[in-house]
Amino acid sequence: MDEKDTNRLEAFSDGVFAVAITLLVLDIKFSPFDANHLRDDWAMWREIGQQGPTLFAFVTSFFTIGVMWLNHHRVFKHIKRTDTTLLFLNILLLMIIVFIPVPTTLLAEYITEPQYHTAAILYGITFLAMATCFNLIWRYASHKGRLLGNKVDVHEVNKISRQYSFGPLLYVVSIAIALFSAPLSVAFSFLLAVFFALPEISPRRRKQPDRLADSDTVAE
Amino acid sequence: MDEKDTNRLEAFSDGVFAVAITLLVLDIKFSPFDANHLRDDWAMWREIGQQGPTLFAFVTSFFTIGVMWLNHHRVFKHIKRTDTTLLFLNILLLMIIVFIPVPTTLLAEYITEPQYHTAAILYGITFLAMATCFNLIWRYASHKGRLLGNKVDVHEVNKISRQYSFGPLLYVVSIAIALFSAPLSVAFSFLLAVFFALPEISPRRRKQPDRLADSDTVAE
Amino acid sequence: MDEKDTNRLEAFSDGVFAVAITLLVLDIKFSPFDANHLRDDWAMWREIGQQGPTLFAFVTSFFTIGVMWLNHHRVFKHIKRTDTTLLFLNILLLMIIVFIPVPTTLLAEYITEPQYHTAAILYGITFLAMATCFNLIWRYASHKGRLLGNKVDVHEVNKISRQYSFGPLLYVVSIAIALFSAPLSVAFSFLLAVFFALPEISPRRRKQPDRLADSDTVAE
Amino acid sequence: MDEKDTNRLEAFSDGVFAVAITLLVLDIKFSPFDANHLRDDWAMWREIGQQGPTLFAFVTSFFTIGVMWLNHHRVFKHIKRTDTTLLFLNILLLMIIVFIPVPTTLLAEYITEPQYHTAAILYGITFLAMATCFNLIWRYASHKGRLLGNKVDVHEVNKISRQYSFGPLLYVVSIAIALFSAPLSVAFSFLLAVFFALPEISPRRRKQPDRLADSDTVAE
Repeated sequence: MDEKDTNRLEAFSDGVFAVAITLLVLDIKFSPFDANHLRDDWAMWREIGQQGPTLFAFVTSFFTIGVMWLNHHRVFKHIKRTDTTLLFLNILLLMIIVFIPVPTTLLAEYITEPQYHTAAILYGITFLAMATCFNLIWRYASHKGRLLGNKVDVHEVNKISRQYSFGPLLYVVSIAIALFSAPLSVAFSFLLAVFFALPEISPRRRKQPDRLADSDTVAE
Repeated sequence: MDEKDTNRLEAFSDGVFAVAITLLVLDIKFSPFDANHLRDDWAMWREIGQQGPTLFAFVTSFFTIGVMWLNHHRVFKHIKRTDTTLLFLNILLLMIIVFIPVPTTLLAEYITEPQYHTAAILYGITFLAMATCFNLIWRYASHKGRLLGNKVDVHEVNKISRQYSFGPLLYVVSIAIALFSAPLSVAFSFLLAVFFALPEISPRRRKQPDRLADSDTVAE
Repeated sequence: MDEKDTNRLEAFSDGVFAVAITLLVLDIKFSPFDANHLRDDWAMWREIGQQGPTLFAFVTSFFTIGVMWLNHHRVFKHIKRTDTTLLFLNILLLMIIVFIPVPTTLLAEYITEPQYHTAAILYGITFLAMATCFNLIWRYASHKGRLLGNKVDVHEVNKISRQYSFGPLLYVVSIAIALFSAPLSVAFSFLLAVFFALPEISPRRRKQPDRLADSDTVAE
Repeated sequence: MDEKDTNRLEAFSDGVFAVAITLLVLDIKFSPFDANHLRDDWAMWREIGQQGPTLFAFVTSFFTIGVMWLNHHRVFKHIKRTDTTLLFLNILLLMIIVFIPVPTTLLAEYITEPQYHTAAILYGITFLAMATCFNLIWRYASHKGRLLGNKVDVHEVNKISRQYSFGPLLYVVSIAIALFSAPLSVAFSFLLAVFFALPEISPRRRKQPDRLADSDTVAE
């Protein structure tokens, strides 16, 4: 029987993800005043409309951090033990997650300015750092099964390794795209994040018809 | 025996609910200064009195998010498994929850202005989105028992399905009311939220006289 | 065997307590600038010294929320089941907890102004509301053992009931003291909070010499 | 069998650590505007570059709070029971943790000003208080095994006691260094924090080759 050593690590990480994802909303402000004058209904709807790019950035970063939480979840379903290196890599990862609201705020200002690229590049760099960090965590933990459980789902472990291996390269592509089009680069980054989170559930889905089968073979 | 697959999903969601509900207080500010002059006792009580609408909005949204947490709790007592779709729907739901402070802030300004309706309509739309999202989660998870446990409390599951099915329609009514009276619409939205959370406990209450009975029949 | 029905309620409450207690620090700002001029070492220490009352308010409220968490912990060690009424009372309690930073901010401004009493009175009223709410939760849950476990530590339950019964009255005294001296009233409120949290551990302490005894008699 | 009495204490503490570590990001603001004028790409990169010291302070404090979480984790792996004194010491510790963003903000301003020392001294004092508090918690809990489990890993317990005993003295050294060089003092404080967290994992690492051995001997 594998006992999980990572419960408190996961609880702490969940807390950081939850706070970081919620802080994103602090960027959204529909000001009811225009030069100390309460806006009427039409002016208020116009104000809401003008916050469109901010809302777009909020939605993108919210789903991004959510998807990163899924990735974290996915990776730590297989990691059962911790050591110093893993704990430090995890703190590094959380630091990058917590940083996401910063480029998001910039993006909200610059997404409508096609001639400027800094915000999208910074956003891409943050994602590249995140992908690299996930890679390091996974490679460190899965190398010779170092921190995985005694029973491992080899198929799923190899799948994660394969997917993650070309992650950083794809995020370099995303940064290159940012030089031409910020919205396209953001959309591409987001799709990549979704893609990396997906496998978690696909084997489970295929299993649904015979739901009563022994769940251990999947859970492990 | 059904093993729960949703523990970390629930922990993460609890965290987001907890942060979102606490951030509401950031809107309440009793300024001790009036033009750089420390207010005396009477001026301070007047200031507190003038913050009445803000306090009303705070209380309404606090109970609303609290009730939404109850609904989440209620729904995930029956959902035992996760898949990609559910995880994404849950992130979408959390995004709407986290957004609630935004229309709340507007509402605090506009609740005393009967001629304006934008804030109450936006509040209503947020609730409509939330009810729709709860509906999607529930329908997706309970369709042919897809993600429910192997043992399901059919009575309770049907009760939730029935209640939730006419939820979105009722919130459209709430938005229509907002065109005439903002406070009435807010009160109506709030009552709906309470109504949708209620069934969770009603069967339990009826069970209290024979508390020693096997709790599994209810818990499942 | 009593199964706990309140795990998610406690997790959510812990989250709210944790966020509320941490948000208190947002009030502490040592400004490094004086009219856009970076302060030198002596000016900086003077600035830190001038923030004394703010620090005092921070420490008081931090320990207060911490002690309230202890009280919550203490009460929910005995409560094993939930129902609608309890869930709503708990949301009400959390709302009061989350509100504490508001009178704390006022207190930081007014603690050095002996001629003004509003801040201390508001602080006292918040505590009175909190004590009343704890009372309601406890009376509701413990009435005929409604929501307690099947095995209850009668001695401990009665002790809580006795202590809590004269709580609100003592906080009325604290508000009366606020009419004469704000710091004295704050100190008195704080001591009351500590007093109500104390019994949790006193029986345990007495038990320490025979640590190997069956812990169930205490835990229940 | 030792039952853990500290679960809710750990959950609450994890929450406070998670919120405090995430709030650090609120200090990082890359302003996209320069006198109401949207910055172009080069001006934006310059702005990001100028925030270097703020980023440095963010990274340092993030790792520091992360490492403190590791220390907390490490200490509470051995502490199995709670009493009033421990609970109050833990609240005191959390208060110091929550305070860390305050000297961090100052540090971000003063790190580039070699002639001023206040920020680094205050940072050092905060660390000294933290180390002292960890010491108190550990000494109180481990004195005659007061709050430890029935089965204790004597080797690990002694190792913690030895390491922690000269902690406060080392932080006094760090404050002395701050009188000469702020960056050196910050780096030294950070290394000390890492050093105190390290032992947690070192015995585990040595154990890795024979991973299948009974994990209880380490876990205890």
